[in-house]
Amino acid sequence: MRLIECVPNVSEGRDPAALERMVAAVRNTPGVELLDWSADADHNRAVLTYAGEPEAVLIGTQALCREAFAVIDMRTHEGAHPRLGAVDVIPFVPLRGVTTEEAVAVARRLGEWIGEQGVPVYYYQDAATRPERQSLPDVRRGEYEGLAARISTPEGAPDVGPAVFNERSGASIVGVRFPLVAFNVNLATADLSVARRIAEAVRFSSGGFRHVRAMGVALEDKGQVQVSMDILQYEKTPVHRVLETVRSEAARYGVAVAGCELIGLAPLDAFTEALRYYMQMHEFSSSQIVESRLLEV
Amino acid sequence: MRLIECVPNVSEGRDPAALERMVAAVRNTPGVELLDWSADADHNRAVLTYAGEPEAVLIGTQALCREAFAVIDMRTHEGAHPRLGAVDVIPFVPLRGVTTEEAVAVARRLGEWIGEQGVPVYYYQDAATRPERQSLPDVRRGEYEGLAARISTPEGAPDVGPAVFNERSGASIVGVRFPLVAFNVNLATADLSVARRIAEAVRFSSGGFRHVRAMGVALEDKGQVQVSMDILQYEKTPVHRVLETVRSEAARYGVAVAGCELIGLAPLDAFTEALRYYMQMHEFSSSQIVESRLLEV
Repeated sequence: MRLIECVPNVSEGRDPAALERMVAAVRNTPGVELLDWSADADHNRAVLTYAGEPEAVLIGTQALCREAFAVIDMRTHEGAHPRLGAVDVIPFVPLRGVTTEEAVAVARRLGEWIGEQGVPVYYYQDAATRPERQSLPDVRRGEYEGLAARISTPEGAPDVGPAVFNERSGASIVGVRFPLVAFNVNLATADLSVARRIAEAVRFSSGGFRHVRAMGVALEDKGQVQVSMDILQYEKTPVHRVLETVRSEAARYGVAVAGCELIGLAPLDAFTEALRYYMQMHEFSSSQIVESRLLEV
Repeated sequence: MRLIECVPNVSEGRDPAALERMVAAVRNTPGVELLDWSADADHNRAVLTYAGEPEAVLIGTQALCREAFAVIDMRTHEGAHPRLGAVDVIPFVPLRGVTTEEAVAVARRLGEWIGEQGVPVYYYQDAATRPERQSLPDVRRGEYEGLAARISTPEGAPDVGPAVFNERSGASIVGVRFPLVAFNVNLATADLSVARRIAEAVRFSSGGFRHVRAMGVALEDKGQVQVSMDILQYEKTPVHRVLETVRSEAARYGVAVAGCELIGLAPLDAFTEALRYYMQMHEFSSSQIVESRLLEV
């Protein structure tokens, strides 16, 4: 089974009836598995996570967009989170047996379709058509409120769809990214400076691993601190190597790792290298795991 | 998705056409996934591994038995491996969302059906009706050649099916067992006595872990020795704990672990406890793995 995941963010996090219509659109698409969804009232935003064969996921995403364009009116939208439109961001994530190129083809087909609905589309990250559109925050700069002015400039022209401001739906940002692993390490100390120094040691921006973003956070009710990380390309920067570096850097302060947590979901392959490392199973493959084999067909 | 595995052993390992008929019977059953099969000419025996929803696996197993009873004639069967009949042993393995009791119910339904085909059936291990039939070697004692005499005795009476010797098909042994993890640890030494002493330290029969069988084996072409193990109940004796004991016992001889191997397949849950241990993910659950989630429905 070829698997692609989709994690759309829509600009509605308060109205239960509207949320239910959007969630139902995905849930009722044959071949699509809704893995998770959550809404945030402060952000006035919801995130859905679902997966399936590429064709089914494309159809499910169209169904979601149809509902979102019907129930969300950006003219009255307010919320804490930056956003450009009703269906704000649609990242496709290749999970199994799907190349980045194939995922980009799915993203582009969705983009064409959204354009036909009269909503301008920007492609980002691995689906970007210009280097300056790879980063999501760059594409979203100016937000919905700045879109009317921006869309008619050469820099702000959409990749597909009308180069005209759509008052009701704003614009959508469609792209492809590798599955991200959100992995936190809690340290048996209340000293935030230790977490901060370790975050600096492992993250790319200050000389650490290429595919790691990290920050130090205080967990006040636990009396601990946390190195909170995103691992963006676990095939190149495997999770176990980052964890072992955190352990070794923590040890220099006499601090031990108290516990770790995986936030949300990850594909099996995000942990097969960890099993190979810790259990020295040099030839271990995820196809030796029954669940993985059952999805191969 | 509820998942049960079935690993039948049939008494044919030489005739490609006969093997193909039996394998095709499983492969062509809707909802059943053939995960593996292999035939051994010396043993004149083949093993199939497949999985699916309990109902589909039951139907696939009936289809396999139908072909096996048609193509195998025990009157002309010879081979190195002990056996009682054409479809010699049929172990059902509860993999996901299926209790042992439910698996026993499936095994019993198959047993009734085999009995209706005129083939005597013995239940073993978790499906046994008498304590003396829990162990497979005990049930198989005397083999096919002793069956005619044994079947009419009170000790040898089948659990279901005719208490009459079936010359063509012998008898079948149907049961339920927990998924077994075949896990080998290679040691960076050529000294077989080290592997043997470690095998003694970890296995149940000489005072080790309750659910471990182990032996020391020489790997002559590698210049290494191996602790070859079966872990019979990974939920009670987790794989990582056995590995760590092997590591610590090897260290007392100045010997390091060179590598480990998982033989064949294992369910994801056989390794989730290892991920919790090595990565200190105290709250980690296999439902955080996308592949596992996709099979949950």
